[in-house]
Amino acid sequence: MKDLKPKHFLWEMAGDVAVIRLDRPDRKNPLTFDSYAELRDTFRDLAYCDDVKAVVFASNGGNFCSGGDVHDIIGPLLQRDMKGLLEFTRMTGDLVKAMKAAPQPVIAAVDGICVGAGAMVALFADMRLGTAAAKTAFLFTRVGLAGCDMGACAMLPRVVGQGRAAELLMTGRSMSADEGFAWGFFNRLVDADALEADAVALAQSLVAGPNFGHMMTKTMLNQEWSMTLDQAIEAEAQAQAICMQTRDFQRAYDAFVAKQKPVFEGN
Amino acid sequence: MKDLKPKHFLWEMAGDVAVIRLDRPDRKNPLTFDSYAELRDTFRDLAYCDDVKAVVFASNGGNFCSGGDVHDIIGPLLQRDMKGLLEFTRMTGDLVKAMKAAPQPVIAAVDGICVGAGAMVALFADMRLGTAAAKTAFLFTRVGLAGCDMGACAMLPRVVGQGRAAELLMTGRSMSADEGFAWGFFNRLVDADALEADAVALAQSLVAGPNFGHMMTKTMLNQEWSMTLDQAIEAEAQAQAICMQTRDFQRAYDAFVAKQKPVFEGN
Amino acid sequence: MKDLKPKHFLWEMAGDVAVIRLDRPDRKNPLTFDSYAELRDTFRDLAYCDDVKAVVFASNGGNFCSGGDVHDIIGPLLQRDMKGLLEFTRMTGDLVKAMKAAPQPVIAAVDGICVGAGAMVALFADMRLGTAAAKTAFLFTRVGLAGCDMGACAMLPRVVGQGRAAELLMTGRSMSADEGFAWGFFNRLVDADALEADAVALAQSLVAGPNFGHMMTKTMLNQEWSMTLDQAIEAEAQAQAICMQTRDFQRAYDAFVAKQKPVFEGN
Repeated sequence: MKDLKPKHFLWEMAGDVAVIRLDRPDRKNPLTFDSYAELRDTFRDLAYCDDVKAVVFASNGGNFCSGGDVHDIIGPLLQRDMKGLLEFTRMTGDLVKAMKAAPQPVIAAVDGICVGAGAMVALFADMRLGTAAAKTAFLFTRVGLAGCDMGACAMLPRVVGQGRAAELLMTGRSMSADEGFAWGFFNRLVDADALEADAVALAQSLVAGPNFGHMMTKTMLNQEWSMTLDQAIEAEAQAQAICMQTRDFQRAYDAFVAKQKPVFEGN
Repeated sequence: MKDLKPKHFLWEMAGDVAVIRLDRPDRKNPLTFDSYAELRDTFRDLAYCDDVKAVVFASNGGNFCSGGDVHDIIGPLLQRDMKGLLEFTRMTGDLVKAMKAAPQPVIAAVDGICVGAGAMVALFADMRLGTAAAKTAFLFTRVGLAGCDMGACAMLPRVVGQGRAAELLMTGRSMSADEGFAWGFFNRLVDADALEADAVALAQSLVAGPNFGHMMTKTMLNQEWSMTLDQAIEAEAQAQAICMQTRDFQRAYDAFVAKQKPVFEGN
Repeated sequence: MKDLKPKHFLWEMAGDVAVIRLDRPDRKNPLTFDSYAELRDTFRDLAYCDDVKAVVFASNGGNFCSGGDVHDIIGPLLQRDMKGLLEFTRMTGDLVKAMKAAPQPVIAAVDGICVGAGAMVALFADMRLGTAAAKTAFLFTRVGLAGCDMGACAMLPRVVGQGRAAELLMTGRSMSADEGFAWGFFNRLVDADALEADAVALAQSLVAGPNFGHMMTKTMLNQEWSMTLDQAIEAEAQAQAICMQTRDFQRAYDAFVAKQKPVFEGN
């Protein structure tokens, strides 16, 4: 098992739940080359960290993330050649790929500013809790770029619908918390005071469930993306048959027969 | 034409509309190996039943379906080897494949409990009416399994959005009737007293329409699932050209010119 | 650069924004063979019209479009053989393909009647503003045909969800303005008096943004349609790397550093 000690963002365990947060609250938590790369590596390593059962990507100081830093990222990018630019855009894409490939459910707890690459990190979480103060903007066009960043044109339409996604990605305008909830971006809005605790509680409720099953659910939500409907149904027949050979399936049945609550162990 | 006389669920005709319902209302209508297999076979046979023009999958005794029975299904599954498990998961998948492959529009009329495989049957109907009492849960994780069952990870995100689907499939929590309506799972909420009559009326209004056209609409909603957008547009150019050679197209025009209501015959 | 002077619909420039409208307001602006073909050709030509930066497809006389004309289109179609029918359905499909292939953002400004092929034109715009009087119906089944017309079964589910799309396409019923807004078909509802001005203002705000980026966003929203998620993320890494070599990216950075508002030039 990997021993994760990231240096460029905060990491703590709440039981079996890893709580991650960026750590420049005075600047609303921008991403840097270092934190991008380390987040990518961390999510990749999580595949081998069986003692981490879920991840909460939390806010810090009232904000989630202000995206790629103008001075630390955009400035240097302007000096790069095409090879260097593609190296950067692939690194950012690799972060969200790694978030989806990690077996753990990932829950974003979004307070305040959640923009640019930060909005993409929230979008690639499996679920999102927000506060009334959450301001989410896919503002790539504001810095002269396109809305197609880190998979936004693939994922955002599936979360909020194609028409709303086109508007958010082209205009770069802020999506309010209420819009985000009404449109299915946020699963729930909670008080800022309760945000992190609620996200951790949701994560822990998943941890108490059949983790192998959750991993398979997450895998298939990704895996079936471009299958035909019949292919997807066959893929799930295989995936669920695998899950039926886990002991958690037996445990649930035994508990039901004994009129008890099942205790799942994720195998 | 097939003569359908199912033994493991109820079947009656309301004009040209087949009304199906499970028949163990005292136990909220669980599915069994027998009813699963017979439903699969029935929906497959419907391709050859030209006198059945639409299907309503109705509730019974205030509930839609409680899913796979714990004693009759889960217990025996635990005794099966992988070959036997895959045989089961493919049978369940084949049911929803057959629902989508049947040429008839399928309308679910959902009252009360609608969970597990029952929720999947409702999800794979073409439209859904519900009541305020409808409680829909994709609760596979509650029995130790994954949310990827019978195509849930493919279909649910397209109906309610990816973020909501992830929550429903991972937590297994119940979706309320109001949520189901707001999110597009239910097309309409109606009084329990009116539920079945409204569903049959909706089905009959479709039957009065151009049935060949409805069949083609249903086919293409499925068929275009993983095409490129340009491929889908070409596929519809072909499909609609076929429909333009049905007599119903002529009938609609003749009725319009004569300032009458068209009488469609489905050919 | 092409010099566009369409004869079968109205065309005017509002700054860099082309405002298109059908021109038979007494009949709620039906489409004809001529206007279909010319719209297709115009949207194709827009790829080479660098001085047109965005398009507003506007209403006229309180209505958007009443679809294919019964007398001018449906009547003649009934005389055609299969070759002639496919020629027509491909022409209509080519119109919406061209709308998506055009580099300019397209905004539909929908007042009143918006039905049949008219609803498809609105659906294939990138964004839609509507009024309280907007009545949108995919009423192909009402004329004896299927709902699968011009890509409806591919696009409508992605905009409003699969369950709502199935109902709208099978029943042909009218979607109210409020439904359209709640479901994500309309990005915003505005007063009829303000409709066109608001649509033009939205278009002009996009024109003031990085047009090369908008073009790439639009391209990728289309291009990623049937990719796997990982393929889409790689595709965006490449697309955004291209955008990082536009001067608009530099302009945004320079303006930020100078605490000014960037002036984008679309290159």
